[in-house]
Amino acid sequence: MSTAWTSRYAARTKGMTSSAIRDLLKVTQKPGMISFAGGLPAPDVFPVQRFEEACHKVLTQQASLALQYGATEGYEALRELIANNMARYGIKARVENVLITSGSQQALDLIGKLFINPGDHVLVEAPTYLGALQAFNVYGSEYLSVPSDENGLCTDLLEEPLRSGPKFMYVLPNFQNPAGTTLSHGRRHELVLLADRYGIPIVEDDPYGQLRYEGEHLPSLVVLDRENLRRDNGYSIGNVIYLSTFSKTLAPGLRLGWIVAPPEVIGKLAQLKQGADLHTSTFTQFVVYEVARDGFLDKHIKLIRQLYRERRDVMLQALAEFFPPEVTWTRPQGGLFLWVTLPSGLNMQAIFNSALEQNVAFVPGDSFYARSNSNGNCSDDPNEGSRHMRLNFSNAAPDQIREGIRRLAAAVRHHLSHQPFSPQLPISV
Amino acid sequence: MSTAWTSRYAARTKGMTSSAIRDLLKVTQKPGMISFAGGLPAPDVFPVQRFEEACHKVLTQQASLALQYGATEGYEALRELIANNMARYGIKARVENVLITSGSQQALDLIGKLFINPGDHVLVEAPTYLGALQAFNVYGSEYLSVPSDENGLCTDLLEEPLRSGPKFMYVLPNFQNPAGTTLSHGRRHELVLLADRYGIPIVEDDPYGQLRYEGEHLPSLVVLDRENLRRDNGYSIGNVIYLSTFSKTLAPGLRLGWIVAPPEVIGKLAQLKQGADLHTSTFTQFVVYEVARDGFLDKHIKLIRQLYRERRDVMLQALAEFFPPEVTWTRPQGGLFLWVTLPSGLNMQAIFNSALEQNVAFVPGDSFYARSNSNGNCSDDPNEGSRHMRLNFSNAAPDQIREGIRRLAAAVRHHLSHQPFSPQLPISV
Repeated sequence: MSTAWTSRYAARTKGMTSSAIRDLLKVTQKPGMISFAGGLPAPDVFPVQRFEEACHKVLTQQASLALQYGATEGYEALRELIANNMARYGIKARVENVLITSGSQQALDLIGKLFINPGDHVLVEAPTYLGALQAFNVYGSEYLSVPSDENGLCTDLLEEPLRSGPKFMYVLPNFQNPAGTTLSHGRRHELVLLADRYGIPIVEDDPYGQLRYEGEHLPSLVVLDRENLRRDNGYSIGNVIYLSTFSKTLAPGLRLGWIVAPPEVIGKLAQLKQGADLHTSTFTQFVVYEVARDGFLDKHIKLIRQLYRERRDVMLQALAEFFPPEVTWTRPQGGLFLWVTLPSGLNMQAIFNSALEQNVAFVPGDSFYARSNSNGNCSDDPNEGSRHMRLNFSNAAPDQIREGIRRLAAAVRHHLSHQPFSPQLPISV
Repeated sequence: MSTAWTSRYAARTKGMTSSAIRDLLKVTQKPGMISFAGGLPAPDVFPVQRFEEACHKVLTQQASLALQYGATEGYEALRELIANNMARYGIKARVENVLITSGSQQALDLIGKLFINPGDHVLVEAPTYLGALQAFNVYGSEYLSVPSDENGLCTDLLEEPLRSGPKFMYVLPNFQNPAGTTLSHGRRHELVLLADRYGIPIVEDDPYGQLRYEGEHLPSLVVLDRENLRRDNGYSIGNVIYLSTFSKTLAPGLRLGWIVAPPEVIGKLAQLKQGADLHTSTFTQFVVYEVARDGFLDKHIKLIRQLYRERRDVMLQALAEFFPPEVTWTRPQGGLFLWVTLPSGLNMQAIFNSALEQNVAFVPGDSFYARSNSNGNCSDDPNEGSRHMRLNFSNAAPDQIREGIRRLAAAVRHHLSHQPFSPQLPISV
């Protein structure tokens, strides 16, 4: 008798189906499963002791504030700490440029709510972060998908889609989810110049930027936008809205992220956030401030880098050792993921099923490609996604990573030897 | 140079202005201010020691789960605790009927997202909870406002608006925000019968139901709906979606609420929640489970009732002592608010300004009336809101309550004696 409700869903939810990844993560909780599927940080590096000290301090010294309603924009001391931390990466922001969100996912939802009219196009990378597509879809977004390669978004393919006037571009320049690739320095310059020339702003999603395991830090788009275009306009910021999070540097279970934007935009986003959840948990904000302060966050990030670099290397080595030569993969300089490319012609669903039988899980690549009703996609191959697997290397222990890749390779080899395929040049290295 | 963004707002944000209450709460943080404006619980009853023990236990025993990503639906042990607690109030729910939300405000947002198409009407009480209007407005909701009196929503005025086919009714039956009134037993029966007859479902918002200071607990609409209509359909629940929260019984800074609905609806809401914030903080869910378990919540609620009853009584007594006889107010049997009605013809903004000068704050009533473009409002007087003040009695200490009412009465008397007014019969007692 719940028909009074079930017949009343709004048009915007039409075709909304459960996320493939969400369903998948349930399967991966099976005992004995080695999962490369989720984007889970390693619990080994949760700074538990520091959290305990922080909880104790907050509850003994500031409980009446930390457990009470708080400002929609966030706890001011935390916003200031974030602004100061970002300054060391060249991102100039004041407290009024920072909005605390309930994870980066809420940032994406609020951005969708504020900017996307039904039918508006968002320009995205192919592949791109699935969670962004989920957040934008509900507001009726269409997509312009632009291919990426081992240097990130192919900026030489941008002009045509930019001319068609997307609402904004959504880009993950560092150790992209899912591909693990990094947008090159040259392309970053090109991207902000094109954004300016065509008047199309950029949402820069940077959850992994601080987790670099090799090479030089590359400047954020929000920094290049200001420098390149000689916008000496204080803190109004320009064409780029920047997003980041504590999920990958402290702990994802806190749900604490932030948006950096011009103050007028922050004001609008805060109004929408008020309607969405009033504010992010005051308690977790106070606790994270106490955890992160006095340089702890930086020291802790060094520890994470060390652990994840080791796990990345174990995975890369195991891939080289166990996988057949027809298979290629990206070599991420940071982050949590790498992206495996199989020869075309294989049945990814069948490989996925075989892998699950072997107690190893990954995310099939097709989840990461935007579906659009429009004909605006720049990608040549509509089946591009079916050749890829996303593998997470942060969560499993090194011996499990090695064993999991061995099992996965067996599943892939099985399908390679049973199905015809045409040899391909590797598209990534 | 932020015009690339500011010229791109979606149509749904048009006319969105900063909430009066939000701006107001900033003013009330002035030192020396006695504020009856916010809906803030008393920090005196935050169970700080219990929180500390819970944080310690969670971080020493379950840190790797409590700081990690979690299920969108929420922490299963907490959902079960909620289901068991509600059973004692007659609400039958299983784990699969419960979705954890980032405060009740998120429940309202997700309900708006799932059910409201632009132009859909929601039937609301006049006055009603401002936060619900904010949550629904962004999805393009129109409103049918039905008057309420000291016994809550006037169910005898419901048939005509129900015939025009609103998407759902939004009702706060217990100690309503802002009016402090309680829907009578008879009207509860009538409401669920009318909802069934016209096929219009109900969203029952119940943040204060457990905070009753006198009289008998009245059955929830979700309970009456099942009993009255002899729906012996297990846990699919019927016409009523029920919302509640830990904000008023443990602490609002946690942002923890929940929705009770049929499993299919919970599934849809969970999909939307995944796009909105992935899930509510795992850490706060684990901590609240440890705080609430083993009967602590019930014991604690008794303490809160005692404290708030005392404060309510102090406020009622001070109102009787200091306010002129032309002014009336509700006598809430629970909750956090009472509702003052002034003679018509006064300038509420001027009274509000005078009150602020005297260092006492309240919320002018007009914020709590739905504005609609349609002509569907059943309320006769469009200026109805300008005669009312919402006063919170939970946050200030008793001596502050008395002093604040004294100051407020002086401000009201000043305007009464300087402005002509026509005497009115009291509409509430």
